[in-house]
Amino acid sequence: MENGGAGNGRPPASAAAWNFAASGTLLGLSALSVRGVLGRIKAGMAAEDDGGRPVIPMGHGDPSAFPCFSTTPDAVDAVADALRSGEHNCYPSAYLSSDLPYELSADDVYLTIGCSQAIEIICSVLARPGANILCPRPGYLFYEARAIFNGMEVRYFDLLPESGWEVDLDGVQALADKNTVAMVIVNPGNPCGNVYTYEHLAKVAEIAKKLGIFVITDEVYAHLTFGQNKFVPMGVFGSVVPVLTLGSISKRWVVPGWRLGWIVTNDPNGVFQMTKVVESIKSYLDISCDPATFVQGAIPQLLENTKGEFFEKTIDVLRQTADICWEKLKGISCITCPSKPEGSMFVMAKLDLSCLQGIKDDMDFCCQLAKEELVVILPGCALGYKNWLRITFAIEPSSLEDGIERLKSFCLRHSKPKVLLET
Amino acid sequence: MENGGAGNGRPPASAAAWNFAASGTLLGLSALSVRGVLGRIKAGMAAEDDGGRPVIPMGHGDPSAFPCFSTTPDAVDAVADALRSGEHNCYPSAYLSSDLPYELSADDVYLTIGCSQAIEIICSVLARPGANILCPRPGYLFYEARAIFNGMEVRYFDLLPESGWEVDLDGVQALADKNTVAMVIVNPGNPCGNVYTYEHLAKVAEIAKKLGIFVITDEVYAHLTFGQNKFVPMGVFGSVVPVLTLGSISKRWVVPGWRLGWIVTNDPNGVFQMTKVVESIKSYLDISCDPATFVQGAIPQLLENTKGEFFEKTIDVLRQTADICWEKLKGISCITCPSKPEGSMFVMAKLDLSCLQGIKDDMDFCCQLAKEELVVILPGCALGYKNWLRITFAIEPSSLEDGIERLKSFCLRHSKPKVLLET
Ligand SMILES: Cc1ncc(COP(=O)(O)O)c(C=O)c1O
Ligand SMILES: Cc1ncc(COP(=O)(O)O)c(C=O)c1O
Repeated sequence: MENGGAGNGRPPASAAAWNFAASGTLLGLSALSVRGVLGRIKAGMAAEDDGGRPVIPMGHGDPSAFPCFSTTPDAVDAVADALRSGEHNCYPSAYLSSDLPYELSADDVYLTIGCSQAIEIICSVLARPGANILCPRPGYLFYEARAIFNGMEVRYFDLLPESGWEVDLDGVQALADKNTVAMVIVNPGNPCGNVYTYEHLAKVAEIAKKLGIFVITDEVYAHLTFGQNKFVPMGVFGSVVPVLTLGSISKRWVVPGWRLGWIVTNDPNGVFQMTKVVESIKSYLDISCDPATFVQGAIPQLLENTKGEFFEKTIDVLRQTADICWEKLKGISCITCPSKPEGSMFVMAKLDLSCLQGIKDDMDFCCQLAKEELVVILPGCALGYKNWLRITFAIEPSSLEDGIERLKSFCLRHSKPKVLLET
Repeated sequence: MENGGAGNGRPPASAAAWNFAASGTLLGLSALSVRGVLGRIKAGMAAEDDGGRPVIPMGHGDPSAFPCFSTTPDAVDAVADALRSGEHNCYPSAYLSSDLPYELSADDVYLTIGCSQAIEIICSVLARPGANILCPRPGYLFYEARAIFNGMEVRYFDLLPESGWEVDLDGVQALADKNTVAMVIVNPGNPCGNVYTYEHLAKVAEIAKKLGIFVITDEVYAHLTFGQNKFVPMGVFGSVVPVLTLGSISKRWVVPGWRLGWIVTNDPNGVFQMTKVVESIKSYLDISCDPATFVQGAIPQLLENTKGEFFEKTIDVLRQTADICWEKLKGISCITCPSKPEGSMFVMAKLDLSCLQGIKDDMDFCCQLAKEELVVILPGCALGYKNWLRITFAIEPSSLEDGIERLKSFCLRHSKPKVLLET
């Protein structure tokens, strides 16, 4: 322990001398974060193994380190130009809203520090004593962490693996009550890699309207689709139900470290004005941090100069890696993927623990895999979905093949002998 | 009202159809923010007046728009180089901590999105039901806003204008109880422009230790001193009382829009480990946003390449503008400054409403001043200090002279006639 206090000859000061007591709720939230869970999995892992094999990161959705996913020089130029202009060193204002790629009034767009801050803001705005929010299971637990931190109850509806991870609409109806303020959907899906049809989104809108709850749609993977279903923004149903659309440049431009996202209010009937959602967002922004000014300043140039080919190239690589992932996972017997990913960067795989030995659960599986094979995969517990795995395929194709080969060796090595399986 | 819903021929949806109800607490917090208050003051103001006079912004502490305060090209190069390197597009980690200008272990430094996020993090970590925190009055109300948002009670101790804005130490003792977790000091001072001596800080440390409360020291204006008292970091008393030091590059490098700050734990006895403050900070960081990666990546080069002359030049201009401000304010009869500023960018001035007519209070004064003279000054109500003013002198010297002249004309124009004063 650094700062142990033993070295200076004095006894360490006693904790009892200080009034502070840590909040158990806060300490528990780390377990809900991808960062927190991956941190624990990587804790036992070497940087490379004796044979010189590198780590293969299939745990979180950050392909930016791989050459085939590197961002476009046009985006770098946009930020560098904004920085050099010297016009964006000041505290920021929201003057850029209207340059975003939405046909909305500037008042409908709020720039945020990535989609993460958009989630923080929405949870801070919706929370009040007794309120609850409906979230998908499996899901992106950052919503849960921020909702719980703000004292809001979280209730989970299922996504249905056998129906392409569509929302269990009956489940949503059964969960909601008068204190339910909103439901969250993530489309294209993290962690499921699915893309919702127009028809399904229309049903979500109708049910939300009936229940009197807003729809929060996380479209951070918008336009990253490579299968049959095209991306449909939930905002097209804004006149049925008020929709809060959250997004960022992190995924489409492959620059998660630049920290620029947004909240868009899709609400032609003005419900967000009437119910003071808008005023609440503005109040919370008054006591919040803003994105770096010159990144905000770069947005018009970034939108204007980024060429279609850059987006197409990214989609092509994602389609290719999704194919590799899907085909190669079929060859691993203790793992099943219910459907082929059509969007985002992830696929969900079900772990059959009954054909493995010496492995307690998904967390144990991922920890042992990291230690033995230097392959990092996210366990389902980080998604509220015990004994499943989320595999990121948005990495260099050759690394992906290598990673899945190592996953296969690991599974084979830990398989129960056939004779045990048969009894 | 945009999105009014009237235009599409349908009646606007009724608010009652939706379960959401806005939180009154959240809506009230905007009044505690400099941004919120200045927004209301500027609402009635023209961009320039008929005579072509420009707005003079003496409301908030952002001198970055003035040539005499522009940042050093070395800092711009550092960020541009980090951006172009392409090595910082990923989600960030804390690998830079050890390059900060503190002789601390890397584990003691947490990078944040400016000092604002440092405040948010600390308030989130310290809050628990029933806890209270002691804050200075007049003060920087962002602490209050974040504390209240997290459900923590705020109690105010006085800064003493007649003793160079030192902390009322007896007041601190009288306020604290077993639920008091920490006290906040801001040094160099915002809004008072004072700089605490070593002796005074030593007394603060002793009292905090006796009360069992941590010290949070906001040193965002560190090194911006130009009077008799040199800047002493509170961290030198870390072995008496555990100290959380908050800071950023916003003020010293004059780049508030770049959004890079830090929390430092000054705690050689390991109290923050024992009491789980460290673990709580890490948990909160797991569910928070990070600063832009390439700004983090730029820090080593920024620290190494920034020349002493840049800092000296800034200090020279601040000394000069503080002098101008002090001398010229003496000539305005309804305003009194108890002490000459020695640090930061501000001076506090007491408003004597009894010699003015048609002006209700400090907010009214600032609103009418903005409208009539296009001069923006922060009213004391935004600092918890009714009927005082905070004047920012960190602007171009010629603008400052112009601004104070206009302030003087305003006061003269609104003065009660002598005959009325005498009765
Ligand atoms: C569904 C979802 N929402 C939000 C985020 C956060 O996005 P950003 O990096 O823009 O903060 C992520 C990041 O992985 C995500 O997967
Ligand atoms: C006392 C004090 N603390 C914190 C801040 C916020 O600093 P930053 O711009 O680095 O977020 C300010 C900004 O004016 C300030 O005056």
